[in-house]
Amino acid sequence: MRLAAVSALAIVSVFGVAAIAQDSGAEADTAAPVDELHQLANELFEPIPSMVPAVEGNAVTREKVELGRMLWFDPRLSASGVLSCNSCHNLAMGGDDNLETSIGHGWQRGPRNSPTVFNAVFNVAQFWDGRAEDLRTQATGPIQAAVEMAATPELVLSVLNSMPEYQERFALAFPGEDEPLTFDNVARAIEAFEATLITPASRFDQYLEGNLNILSDEEKEGLQLFIDTGCAGCHAGVNLGGQDYFPFGVVERPGSEILPPNDKGRFAVTQTASDEYVFRAVPLRNVELTAPYFHSGKVWDLEQAVAIMGVSQLGADLSEEEVQAISAFLRTLTGEQPSVELPILPVSTPETPQPSPQVKNSLEPEDAVQDQTSVR
Amino acid sequence: MRLAAVSALAIVSVFGVAAIAQDSGAEADTAAPVDELHQLANELFEPIPSMVPAVEGNAVTREKVELGRMLWFDPRLSASGVLSCNSCHNLAMGGDDNLETSIGHGWQRGPRNSPTVFNAVFNVAQFWDGRAEDLRTQATGPIQAAVEMAATPELVLSVLNSMPEYQERFALAFPGEDEPLTFDNVARAIEAFEATLITPASRFDQYLEGNLNILSDEEKEGLQLFIDTGCAGCHAGVNLGGQDYFPFGVVERPGSEILPPNDKGRFAVTQTASDEYVFRAVPLRNVELTAPYFHSGKVWDLEQAVAIMGVSQLGADLSEEEVQAISAFLRTLTGEQPSVELPILPVSTPETPQPSPQVKNSLEPEDAVQDQTSVR
Repeated sequence: MRLAAVSALAIVSVFGVAAIAQDSGAEADTAAPVDELHQLANELFEPIPSMVPAVEGNAVTREKVELGRMLWFDPRLSASGVLSCNSCHNLAMGGDDNLETSIGHGWQRGPRNSPTVFNAVFNVAQFWDGRAEDLRTQATGPIQAAVEMAATPELVLSVLNSMPEYQERFALAFPGEDEPLTFDNVARAIEAFEATLITPASRFDQYLEGNLNILSDEEKEGLQLFIDTGCAGCHAGVNLGGQDYFPFGVVERPGSEILPPNDKGRFAVTQTASDEYVFRAVPLRNVELTAPYFHSGKVWDLEQAVAIMGVSQLGADLSEEEVQAISAFLRTLTGEQPSVELPILPVSTPETPQPSPQVKNSLEPEDAVQDQTSVR
Repeated sequence: MRLAAVSALAIVSVFGVAAIAQDSGAEADTAAPVDELHQLANELFEPIPSMVPAVEGNAVTREKVELGRMLWFDPRLSASGVLSCNSCHNLAMGGDDNLETSIGHGWQRGPRNSPTVFNAVFNVAQFWDGRAEDLRTQATGPIQAAVEMAATPELVLSVLNSMPEYQERFALAFPGEDEPLTFDNVARAIEAFEATLITPASRFDQYLEGNLNILSDEEKEGLQLFIDTGCAGCHAGVNLGGQDYFPFGVVERPGSEILPPNDKGRFAVTQTASDEYVFRAVPLRNVELTAPYFHSGKVWDLEQAVAIMGVSQLGADLSEEEVQAISAFLRTLTGEQPSVELPILPVSTPETPQPSPQVKNSLEPEDAVQDQTSVR
């Protein structure tokens, strides 16, 4: 996690909140007999903090967040003038697009399923193969990918420089900088906004914080199974995932329908044979809102996804009841969705480049996988 | 205008507010010498009311507006799961998409420029050819148009019926109805939400209401020219347009680049020869936010649009200074943009039809003009 202790907006870091949670857990322990499952859960997982976390090397200020929200919704950051960050990471729908793979410039389909942006600030790295070390690096990818927003840094800067309000807002968001309106600062403003897109207070978080009765017996059984069967071996920490890399198919590789052979995952980043079909363990926060599942987006049903994971990652042929219980537990990970006001965007000027919806060179999805800018 | 006097939400009808405006104008008159331009303006135009107007036959209730806001942003109302009402009527960008013509299903281009939804409740009828008598009739068009959202009423009802929260919200929004979740009620909820999308308090409205110094000398000169040259003959009333139909080219028909010969406007609605190339006079509220201009979307520059209108509609070869002054006046029509919170949409269920982004039968723009559902 790239989190720092000090920020203009963030009062409590995620570690601070985790500490508070453990304190209240300890308090509950003195009054009641030790609950082993609760204790174990607090060792493996952390609640989502209720405060916006700090981001290393990028102070999350009000001005930057406000600017980032505008950029997030501005379709003029795409070549066509049609697509914005929100097109594929829809904040009204769990922070993703609920499509198998996304639709981008020219109605082209991207090669991988769009991951949710909610709580993404807590992931160790971004994209399914982790090739972006932080959200600001990630943000520069889709803007430039030919099958996504199909823009260039030059186009983005021309668009933003053409509107006096954007110039002023960049100066406010990046005070003291000689040249505040840069592509890097576009990405930093978006990252700051994304840091606010956290979903605290899920039922599971309330459980971690000491409300032991908020989970049903089936959900607790699911949590116990999630730990005992080994799911938590990869899906732990604050996001129940997003922290490390594992082959899809630790025990048994899924069929080519679910694991398309042409997408070798982290191998494309490291060129290391052992990284073939390796992906970052997916964060499971709000998983009930983010179907369809897997990097291929081929599975729509949460129960089916759990069953597939059991076989492929753990060699466990989970019973129907076990799958139900684990899925019931996973549905307790849905947190409070952020409330976001649509920005009022500055009006284009005669200097604003006009939208170019035409498709210049159509990429086949197979080629697109080779084009690293276009892969999620 | 389809406005009624009584509604659960609306406290003042547009007529009521106009009356107040005239009162305060009269008050100003007792203190100062009669300002002829101000008096004339108040005879020709009305301010946008500050309260949500009533809609005839569709009470604008809180529950209906809230439901309409959800439907407005829900891309599952499109066949692809990608497009929502907001795709082409972007509430962050003046209520339209700032494209020549819109991009719809399969990246197909619609045949006409997307009109702004802001203040559309005050128009006598909807679409460029006025073929929908109200917003609820209009709302059913783009959802079904093959080049726009490409859905069917059956698909929309399957989608909405699959989510318990939508079922509950329709029951709340349409109390006492045996079957609240109907396609007609989808349109009514969207219409109720659209009735809230008004932009009061423009500088021109403040002028109408008695603040005579809020317009600059050039803007007042532009207003005078707008009246004297004859612009106000078609562009009058609360929306400065949107009330009646006129040929594009009253005096001189513009070139085929601006007036494509295959789109005969209202002729397609009435089949009357005199309606060839007839369109509804465009409402000019927020016109500085809604480039490019005309039903063809071919003109990006407001000054150029004014000059073209002078020649084609009035036979007036306006000087550069006159064009500048009229354009300066038109820029005073930008009102307070509505602040809209993004809804949190209900999660899809196993019963929700999966998105179908594939394009079934691609229509050429020429054919699309013949397909009345697809024309704006």
